[in-house]
Amino acid sequence: MKGGEEEKAADFANYFCSYASLYHQKQMLTDHRRMQAYHGAIMQNRGLFAGKRVLDVGTGSGILALWCAKAGAAKVFAVEYTDMAKHARKLIEANGASDIVEVIQSSVEALQLDGPVDIIISEWMGYFLLRESMLDSVVRARDRWLAPGGLMFPSHATMYWGLVSDEEDRLAKAAEYLQSTQEWHRFKREMRQYYDCDMNVLEGVYEEEQKGYYILSSFWAELQPDQCVGQGAMIKHFDMHTCTLEDVQGVEETPFRINVEHDCRVSGFAGWFTADFRGTEANPLPVPVLLSTAPDNGYTHWGQQVFYLEVPHWVPRGGAVEGTLALTRQKENIRLYDVGVKHRRHGNSQEPNLGPMQEATYTMP
Amino acid sequence: MKGGEEEKAADFANYFCSYASLYHQKQMLTDHRRMQAYHGAIMQNRGLFAGKRVLDVGTGSGILALWCAKAGAAKVFAVEYTDMAKHARKLIEANGASDIVEVIQSSVEALQLDGPVDIIISEWMGYFLLRESMLDSVVRARDRWLAPGGLMFPSHATMYWGLVSDEEDRLAKAAEYLQSTQEWHRFKREMRQYYDCDMNVLEGVYEEEQKGYYILSSFWAELQPDQCVGQGAMIKHFDMHTCTLEDVQGVEETPFRINVEHDCRVSGFAGWFTADFRGTEANPLPVPVLLSTAPDNGYTHWGQQVFYLEVPHWVPRGGAVEGTLALTRQKENIRLYDVGVKHRRHGNSQEPNLGPMQEATYTMP
Ligand SMILES: Nc1ncnc2c1ncn2[C@@H]1O[C@H](CSCC[C@H](N)C(=O)O)[C@@H](O)[C@H]1O
Ligand SMILES: Nc1ncnc2c1ncn2[C@@H]1O[C@H](CSCC[C@H](N)C(=O)O)[C@@H](O)[C@H]1O
Repeated sequence: MKGGEEEKAADFANYFCSYASLYHQKQMLTDHRRMQAYHGAIMQNRGLFAGKRVLDVGTGSGILALWCAKAGAAKVFAVEYTDMAKHARKLIEANGASDIVEVIQSSVEALQLDGPVDIIISEWMGYFLLRESMLDSVVRARDRWLAPGGLMFPSHATMYWGLVSDEEDRLAKAAEYLQSTQEWHRFKREMRQYYDCDMNVLEGVYEEEQKGYYILSSFWAELQPDQCVGQGAMIKHFDMHTCTLEDVQGVEETPFRINVEHDCRVSGFAGWFTADFRGTEANPLPVPVLLSTAPDNGYTHWGQQVFYLEVPHWVPRGGAVEGTLALTRQKENIRLYDVGVKHRRHGNSQEPNLGPMQEATYTMP
Repeated sequence: MKGGEEEKAADFANYFCSYASLYHQKQMLTDHRRMQAYHGAIMQNRGLFAGKRVLDVGTGSGILALWCAKAGAAKVFAVEYTDMAKHARKLIEANGASDIVEVIQSSVEALQLDGPVDIIISEWMGYFLLRESMLDSVVRARDRWLAPGGLMFPSHATMYWGLVSDEEDRLAKAAEYLQSTQEWHRFKREMRQYYDCDMNVLEGVYEEEQKGYYILSSFWAELQPDQCVGQGAMIKHFDMHTCTLEDVQGVEETPFRINVEHDCRVSGFAGWFTADFRGTEANPLPVPVLLSTAPDNGYTHWGQQVFYLEVPHWVPRGGAVEGTLALTRQKENIRLYDVGVKHRRHGNSQEPNLGPMQEATYTMP
C-alpha cells in the first residue's frame, strides 16, 4: 500500500474487492491441494508452533490462523484488510480460538504489534506465483515483524516454465481472434453505408486491441500431463527468509531451454509454481510439505497460465525450444504483469537448424 | 469528478476503464436503434446546427461530433476523458472534419472553453437510464457552458417500470441460488471433516451474499413483448434543459400501479427508459426523434433491467400490482444504484383482496 491515497483507492476497486466476498474465499477453501498443504505443514509440525507468536498475513476467512491456534500457538495475529476480517472474527470465536487469535482489520503495512513474531504464515501466491504482487506485503511484514531466526510458511517458492502442445485450444483462440477482426469489416461497411463515417483509420488500433485480448494474453488452464512437453524449466526461486523487496519485483530476462523427447508441435508455453514448507537450514521442518501447481499434479484453483504462440514450433525428437523469459509489472497496475518471451526452436543432430529468435509480450490479465 | 484524487482513481478503475477500449465503443456503434436516433436527430434537424457552436460531452469514438460537423456546425468541442480521445482525433481527421471538431482529452468538469455553446449533445444514458450517473456531468456542463436558450440533445428522458411474466427465467435464477446454497452444505461438511473447522456461523452471511447475487440483483434482459404485462408506468421524467443536479441524484419513493388485463403470474419488474430529441417549447425541433428501450421496441444494447420476485404474484384479469419504487446511489460507488421496491397485488372486483405489502432492495450491478 505504498503510494498515495489515490493509488490505494484504485487498488481497492481492482484488487481487494473480490476478497471481501465469502464466495471467493470459499473457492480457495475448496482447493483441497492448497488446503492439505497448509494444513499438513502446520499440523504435522505442531512442535514448532507450540507456545509461539504467529502472524497470518491476509487471513481472509481466518482459516490458517485457526489452524495455528489448534497447533498450539500462544498468540496469532490475523491481519486482513477487507471486511472479511469481520467474518474471520466470528469464525474464530465460533471455533473457540478467540483467546489465541486476534483478528486485526488493517493492511499489514499499517499494522502495529507489541513486538516481533516467531512465525509468519501467509497464502499470498497468485497465478504464475507473482500475480497480485501480494508478496511485497509479506516481505515488508517479515522485515518489520519476524524475530531473528523466525520461520516463514511457506519457506520457499519457485516459478516454472514449460512447453504446451495443444493445437486444439491454440486454434480456438486464433479462430476467435479472426472472427472478431472479421466482424470489424462488417462494422466498417455499415458505418460507411448508414452513418457516413469512414472507420479505416482505426482498423489497426482495433486489430491490436483484439490481438492483445485473444493472442497476446495468457489464459487460465488446467493442463493435463499429455498436453505438456518435456520438463518444466526452473525460472526463479525465492527463499522467503532472505528474498528482498527488489527480488520480488518481477523476473529479469532469464534463459530457459526445454528439451523435446518426441516429435511434436509446440503450441505455446505454460507458467506455474511450487511452494515449499521446509523451514531454514538452521531450523528445518520435521515434516516438510510441498504444494505444487504443476500440470502433472492435479487441480488447484491456480491452474497454469498458458501463453499461445501465433505460429507453433515444429520440434523433432531430440530438439528443444530455448529462449528467455521476463516478468515486468504493469505501469498502470503493479499487481499485474507483462510477460516477455523470446524463443526459438532447436533441431536435433539430424536436423540441426535453429529457427530465428521470435519475440512476444503477453499480458497476464 | 467531484471529490478527491482518491475517489477519482477508484472511479477510473471502475468506470472509465471499459470506455478506453474500441471494442466497447464498437458495441455502442453497432446499436442501430441508438445510432439511428442520434443520426436522425442531428441530420434531420441540420438547420439547427448550421453555424452553431456544439459541445459533445463524452465523445468516445467521436461519432456524434462528426455528425454535428457534417450537419453544418461552425465548431464542435468533443470532450473525452479516456485515451479514446486519441482515436477520436484520428477518426475526425480521417473524415475531414478537423477544421470543425476539436477533440479535447479532459473530464468535462475540468473543461475550459472560450465561451458558451449553442447546443450540448451527449450519449450519457446507462442501464435503466441512471446507471453510471454520467448525467451529473452533463448537467454540470449545461450549467457552465450552455448559452441561454441553447438546446440539449436529447432534450428529455423518461424512466418506465413494467411487469414481467417470465417464470422460466425467474425459476432459473432461483434454482441457481438454491444450488449455490446447497454447495455450501457440502463445503461445510468437508471443512469439518477434513480441516476441523466449523463454518456454521458464516452460513447466514453466505446465504445473504448469494441471495444478493442471484435474487436481489437486477439482470440485463432483452424482453419480448409477450413477457411483459400491461402498460409500463412512468416513474420519472427529466427535462434536460431544466433538471438540477439534485433532481438527477436518483428517484425518491414514487408510486406506481400497473393494471393486468389477463390472468397471469407476475414474475418480477422491468425498468427501461426513453430519450426524446424535441428541443424546448420555445425552440422545438422541426423533426422530433424518440429513442425507446421499451420491450416492444426491439434490441438496444441497454435492453431492460429485470428484477425478479422471490415469490411471484398471481393476479387475475382486471387486477393490478401497485407499490412504490426508489433509486438510491450506492455509498461505495455513486455510479451504481440500489433499487427499493414495495409492492402488492390487487385483486379485481370479483376477488378484491389486496395482498400484503412486500418490500425488497435490489442492487443494479
Ligand atoms: N497488504 C495486505 N494487508 C492485509 N490483508 C491483505 C493484504 N494483501 C492481501 N490481503 C488479504 O490476503 C488474503 C489473501 S487470500 C488467502 C486467505 C486465507 N489466508 C486463506 O489461506 O484462505 C485476502 O483476503 C486479501 O484481502
Ligand atoms: N465526465 C466526463 N468527462 C469526459 N468524458 C466522459 C465523462 N463521463 C463519461 N465520459 C465519456 O463519455 C462516453 C460515453 S459513451 C458515448 C460515446 C459516444 N458519444 C457515442 O455516442 O458513441 C465514454 O467514452 C466516457 O469515457
